Amino acid sequence: MGLNAEIAAQPEIAERLLREGPAQLAPLVEAVRRRGVTHVVIAARGSSDHAAVYAQYVLGALGRLPVALAAPSLFTLYASPPRVADALVIGISQSGRSPDIVAVLAEARRQGALTAAITNDPDSPLTATAEHRLDLQAGAERSIAATKTYTAELLVIAMLAVALGTDASWDDALAAVPDAQRAALELSGRAAELADERAGLADCVVLGRGFNLATAHEWALKLKELAYVRAQAYSSADFQHGPVASLAPGADVLAIVAPGPLAADAADLVGRLRTERRARVLLLAPEPMPGTDHLGVPAGVPEWLSPLVSIIPAQLFVAALARAKGLDVERPRGLHKVTLTR
Amino acid sequence: MGLNAEIAAQPEIAERLLREGPAQLAPLVEAVRRRGVTHVVIAARGSSDHAAVYAQYVLGALGRLPVALAAPSLFTLYASPPRVADALVIGISQSGRSPDIVAVLAEARRQGALTAAITNDPDSPLTATAEHRLDLQAGAERSIAATKTYTAELLVIAMLAVALGTDASWDDALAAVPDAQRAALELSGRAAELADERAGLADCVVLGRGFNLATAHEWALKLKELAYVRAQAYSSADFQHGPVASLAPGADVLAIVAPGPLAADAADLVGRLRTERRARVLLLAPEPMPGTDHLGVPAGVPEWLSPLVSIIPAQLFVAALARAKGLDVERPRGLHKVTLTR
Repeated sequence: MGLNAEIAAQPEIAERLLREGPAQLAPLVEAVRRRGVTHVVIAARGSSDHAAVYAQYVLGALGRLPVALAAPSLFTLYASPPRVADALVIGISQSGRSPDIVAVLAEARRQGALTAAITNDPDSPLTATAEHRLDLQAGAERSIAATKTYTAELLVIAMLAVALGTDASWDDALAAVPDAQRAALELSGRAAELADERAGLADCVVLGRGFNLATAHEWALKLKELAYVRAQAYSSADFQHGPVASLAPGADVLAIVAPGPLAADAADLVGRLRTERRARVLLLAPEPMPGTDHLGVPAGVPEWLSPLVSIIPAQLFVAALARAKGLDVERPRGLHKVTLTR
Repeated sequence: MGLNAEIAAQPEIAERLLREGPAQLAPLVEAVRRRGVTHVVIAARGSSDHAAVYAQYVLGALGRLPVALAAPSLFTLYASPPRVADALVIGISQSGRSPDIVAVLAEARRQGALTAAITNDPDSPLTATAEHRLDLQAGAERSIAATKTYTAELLVIAMLAVALGTDASWDDALAAVPDAQRAALELSGRAAELADERAGLADCVVLGRGFNLATAHEWALKLKELAYVRAQAYSSADFQHGPVASLAPGADVLAIVAPGPLAADAADLVGRLRTERRARVLLLAPEPMPGTDHLGVPAGVPEWLSPLVSIIPAQLFVAALARAKGLDVERPRGLHKVTLTR
């Protein structure tokens, strides 16, 4: 199964997870409640780290839990781990084999913390280390760049947030994800058109905020891995605290604007980058904006679930851009499917 | 006082803080102990956010506390703040005036959390909002790019970590910071030489890890703000999980290698980038490495304090690079001293 097939498989994987995930989630949710967990610590790298960024927002907003991203080197090379006994400690890893992520979970369990592994390999060391397991059930991912396991990670985290929360309507919102993802897959033609117009793209910034800060990071990573674009992701708020100075006139900006309370500020920033910096803007959003190139995002899910949908046109764009640049998406320079850092 | 004078003032500011800071720290440390605080939540933007990255490591390693970086939009635009009543919530802001940082502290205080403001303006809204205040006492910072307030923020955080910890030798290590910073200021000639050789620098990656991940982020931000370099900072571990693919042959790499348990892996990565990617490497480290250009970092402080020293040659390099490019460091494109995001 190649990259394009894995991108196309995402709605079906979401359906399976929505059907079979709750049975694995229930004992973890019960344990979180019983122990009165007050915060979450997550260890992850690469695309899984972007799923952790999403977790900061969705576990914060729906589950009301603050989320710390673990600094794995404190647990490994420095051997000075923080005390995490009162936390829920989650390891997220497609392969379940990165030694530093396994080490964080092992130390957390040693300290007596509640632990959970989110992984696509139920026989991995990470699964063996954690007390609770949340399997992605996405089927083997052969492409080096994670796509279907990324959205599966987001969905497991969203399901956890919903289960920890209080609003019955959230379950209906989850059920709408697969169809919204199917509609997003229909955008492959438009994504290819925009990619062909940008076949020379060498560097750009990718702006998002809130729930879709994760989308900005993941889109930038795919651009780097597969299309060798020096893409730099920012929260659109952080971008204005300094990095905006480095934006050359006429530079490429990819912007994600989700509907919701952040949309007005984001649209305002995009407008200013266009007029004051003459930026060439590719806008990933439900609605177009004048003077920008528009890659649509299907409606149908609330903002807190939009990262599971908006990343799909972004993936399609990157795959098309790599093709336009004549690059082999199955053999990115210097990468392997499993990266072992300690 | 211009940028160069503010860079030069850092040792004197550190001396003042070491002398006068403990009186402000004592009641906060007493409250952390009394309440049995189990984790820390920090809200910050720009350079102050890099001080927060340092806090993740130094409060984790010395104070054994996990640190979450707040997602301010959850507190402001989304109005769905996580529960932080059991945490120590710290706002870090040079000006103390960013509305979103103030909003995080206001909500934390409303929830009954222990709160502290680290700022250079004792009359700011942030100071008025937090229960405890830790003043930087760095004198007005006129340059748009933060330098002296950044190292002062690091020092306040290191002093807090030492006060929460258990090792009497840590106080002696703190006392050695001003002299190590003075020795670092002596590197301005070498920094200018390396900057002149790189007057055409347009983009680069900046690699660091552990305590000096903060240094990598802060160095990259200064490069963007003052020298308009598209500099992208990475943990050298995260870099290998994908972004390495985007590194073109012969690309510029700036690498920070501090002495300590991470040094061997970092040196190994630098060697591979040199040989496999023909990277042009500028090495910020106590010792040189073959085939790289070396910008020294004075010894004299342990690794956990090295970010307070290693950023100084990096600041000197950026100031010299901006000069070599003919840019005005006091008027960076599109920036203001105080950025108001919500």
